[in-house]
Amino acid sequence: MRQLTVQLEERSYPILIGSGLLAEAPQFFEQYGLTKKSPLLIITDENVAPKYLAGLEQTLRAADYTVVSAVVPSGETSKSLSVYQDMMTVAIEGKLDRSSAIIALGGGVVGDLAGFVAATYMRGIKFVQVPTTILAHDSSVGGKVAVNHPLAKNMIGAFHQPELVLYDVDTLQSLPPRDVSAGLSEMLKHGLIRDEAFAHWCEEHAEELLGLDPEALGYGLERGCGIKAEIVSRDERENGERALLNLGHTIGHAIEAIAGYGEFLHGEAISIGMAGSALLGEKLGAPAGLYDDTVRMLRSLRLPVTMPKHLDTDALMDAMMHDKKFREGHMVFIIPDRIGAARIVKDVPVSAVRDVIELLKEGAE
Amino acid sequence: MRQLTVQLEERSYPILIGSGLLAEAPQFFEQYGLTKKSPLLIITDENVAPKYLAGLEQTLRAADYTVVSAVVPSGETSKSLSVYQDMMTVAIEGKLDRSSAIIALGGGVVGDLAGFVAATYMRGIKFVQVPTTILAHDSSVGGKVAVNHPLAKNMIGAFHQPELVLYDVDTLQSLPPRDVSAGLSEMLKHGLIRDEAFAHWCEEHAEELLGLDPEALGYGLERGCGIKAEIVSRDERENGERALLNLGHTIGHAIEAIAGYGEFLHGEAISIGMAGSALLGEKLGAPAGLYDDTVRMLRSLRLPVTMPKHLDTDALMDAMMHDKKFREGHMVFIIPDRIGAARIVKDVPVSAVRDVIELLKEGAE
Repeated sequence: MRQLTVQLEERSYPILIGSGLLAEAPQFFEQYGLTKKSPLLIITDENVAPKYLAGLEQTLRAADYTVVSAVVPSGETSKSLSVYQDMMTVAIEGKLDRSSAIIALGGGVVGDLAGFVAATYMRGIKFVQVPTTILAHDSSVGGKVAVNHPLAKNMIGAFHQPELVLYDVDTLQSLPPRDVSAGLSEMLKHGLIRDEAFAHWCEEHAEELLGLDPEALGYGLERGCGIKAEIVSRDERENGERALLNLGHTIGHAIEAIAGYGEFLHGEAISIGMAGSALLGEKLGAPAGLYDDTVRMLRSLRLPVTMPKHLDTDALMDAMMHDKKFREGHMVFIIPDRIGAARIVKDVPVSAVRDVIELLKEGAE
Repeated sequence: MRQLTVQLEERSYPILIGSGLLAEAPQFFEQYGLTKKSPLLIITDENVAPKYLAGLEQTLRAADYTVVSAVVPSGETSKSLSVYQDMMTVAIEGKLDRSSAIIALGGGVVGDLAGFVAATYMRGIKFVQVPTTILAHDSSVGGKVAVNHPLAKNMIGAFHQPELVLYDVDTLQSLPPRDVSAGLSEMLKHGLIRDEAFAHWCEEHAEELLGLDPEALGYGLERGCGIKAEIVSRDERENGERALLNLGHTIGHAIEAIAGYGEFLHGEAISIGMAGSALLGEKLGAPAGLYDDTVRMLRSLRLPVTMPKHLDTDALMDAMMHDKKFREGHMVFIIPDRIGAARIVKDVPVSAVRDVIELLKEGAE
């Protein structure tokens, strides 16, 4: 088992990565302070439930935990205030109290939704992230939880750190190839912003990663989570460098909003966004070759790097204006300087962004 | 002007109490860190808006603040997820960003709603409490914000401290007598749990308080807020003594839930609850006379002290079981030992509570 710690003083917590961890959930839950006197609520989705829910319920009940469960539809549509209210109803009817905990069993959508329920049920109770996707190595660490508003993604949320991230890599073996690639997009992102050697490692080990080789995957997740944990430890509330983690996300969120949540996986949308950020970087003075290197790395993980032509440029620009990284009247972007280093640029000209959107459409379908 | 500080390290903030403060809002907002570069959102209700909204908007705009406003229906029904979502829409359309602030102009309902919007818009932005009721001297201090779930009051919320509480006592002069009494209920509560002399002072100055005498009101609010601030400073997240502030609230919340939000003002419901808590106190060993003294004090402020007979005892008991002060299987109550002192009792027998509900109905309509 690989173990990391997110250092946040009294809110520090461990990330455990390994094989067979779901079967040991009760002992980890107990070790990290989840009482057996109050009910647990497992929130999961329709994809994950048939594979792992009954087993986890059984394991926990055998260890004398009281468990209630809720299964939400798969996909971004479950990050709504309506599903959020349903989860509150389940929690109240399940008699969760202030000592209860919520278990997020699933990918990023489940983690974000369950985490926001935990952040606000009775003004905040404990929660545990049990990620079942590669993508969730990013979203499960750092305490950002949210649901979507019809007008903008992740607009309603909180910072609420889990007690524990329990990452059973066996659950990744059943992921469809498209989800594997989309998850590796966030893994590569961590290299692109902070660790040149890790970015190259991702490209060099692309085939092993895509093939879900346990050793490559274990190391990649450990290093990906490690970079994220390090940044979050220094800037929990995103007053500064944490924003670097948003590389590719401004364009990516706009794609998700305009294409309709669901057409693109989150990791695919930010892959296009990272290609766009590299182009912007070159426009703003980064050495030529940055875009080519970035695109080659993304392609090695079988990720899209062009903007579909049917996505209207005006609509994309408008969606970006709604994005929350638009602060005090300026357009803020995370811009790479080179592979392994990026910075926050607060006054990116809107015209440059528009040019990049158009460039990203060249060669696209 | 009277000034207090809620001591919470980096989240400490001042409570300013005085006459004419609304007209000076811009200078206080600036002093306490509200930028003019980002829009402010004022949330208020239909009662308060006609009296103070246009004036406050004008004052702020004259000082170069950008202001958007939202007016919600008066009363507890506005503490719903549906109104909450509407406020999020207004905030997004008004282009509030991470440096924006939300101004809660009104009583407890507006403060709770606006505070929860601020706690969760873009994962938390600043807010300012501008209370316009006596009751809000309690709710505006301490950072508890929430909306109601159809099954239970205040079930969905957060701890989110304001930057500033700006208490213009001139706004209290237009309060209807019933609201005055209901507000004084929370003021007396602060004496009952922590300060015997202040409880007696409230009774002795009841006529001046009911007549909105500025000197009496100023002192009463300062001392009421002061007791609250002192307790919150020591226990922000209600892991211990902050629960004392819930004196009368378990029964009070049940009354509000069963009677239908609106039939009783919050202060009236907790007045009946405090009478009930005194009865429970005597049952659990407090000296005889506690109930008579408590009831006499409450009556001096023209507050109800009996349970209406049409409220079904079973329904009340059931509502209490849903209440969030029901923790790990035991029934938790705040029980007075004497005037000026109370404690948290975690294993109050359900039968004793039922007896008290029945006793509170004797002599009632």
